[in-house]
Amino acid sequence: MKLKSIGVINNSIVRRSDKNSWKSAISTIVLDRSLENALDKLEEFSHIIIIYWLHKISSSERSIEKVHPKGKEQLPLVGVLATRSPARPNPIGIATVRLLSRDHNILSVQGLDALDGTPLLDIKPFIPRYDCPAKATTPVWITEK
Amino acid sequence: MKLKSIGVINNSIVRRSDKNSWKSAISTIVLDRSLENALDKLEEFSHIIIIYWLHKISSSERSIEKVHPKGKEQLPLVGVLATRSPARPNPIGIATVRLLSRDHNILSVQGLDALDGTPLLDIKPFIPRYDCPAKATTPVWITEK
Repeated sequence: MKLKSIGVINNSIVRRSDKNSWKSAISTIVLDRSLENALDKLEEFSHIIIIYWLHKISSSERSIEKVHPKGKEQLPLVGVLATRSPARPNPIGIATVRLLSRDHNILSVQGLDALDGTPLLDIKPFIPRYDCPAKATTPVWITEK
Repeated sequence: MKLKSIGVINNSIVRRSDKNSWKSAISTIVLDRSLENALDKLEEFSHIIIIYWLHKISSSERSIEKVHPKGKEQLPLVGVLATRSPARPNPIGIATVRLLSRDHNILSVQGLDALDGTPLLDIKPFIPRYDCPAKATTPVWITEK
């Protein structure tokens, strides 16, 4: 199972500690020129799902079993697969973001929680009836600040 | 960028034509035993996001540029990255499903649009405030039956 980078994410988030500002951050996603046709009509969606490679995760971080959610020690230790921690067996990140504009092979998006220089793996249109189940519930510890 | 399978998806969907019944289908996801701790507290979420490898996609299908959404020829040809078609540059699938139960390293879920035998790549908890943007809009052609 081999992946290839299909583009790169550029933004102002250069360290993990910068990620507090990700909700407002604008990212530019430059796809390979050969994929311009594959993006046709993506601009008709208000939101898209970005799938990317967490390239700063070391091989040892891929075997971590438990973490404190959001790195907060006052929250209980839970399995990494019960969190959105980047330290996971396959370092794949996903984020649903607002699509601001498309110019040929270049996208501008808002709300992408990825570091500058992150390799892009895939883009999917956000479709509420697939991606937003009604009545979803989460544990208390995930909503604590 | 190398992935490893962390488990396997088992269900009754053996051909792509069987996928019409995916909404009601129950799938069993058997993770590697070594990942049991990494699943701790996942059962506290009602829904989870399954990330999987589309193992039946050939290398030639990975270079398709445009498709008819859902294979329907009456719908316009659009870029593959503007659809959820499995034929895409990196054959990664994502699906948000209901988590019915967890028994150690084995999960039971409903609504997983994957073929029997699909390799599992990652699992993330579904968190509405990250995954469900308000006021998302889609083009008319994506909602047509």
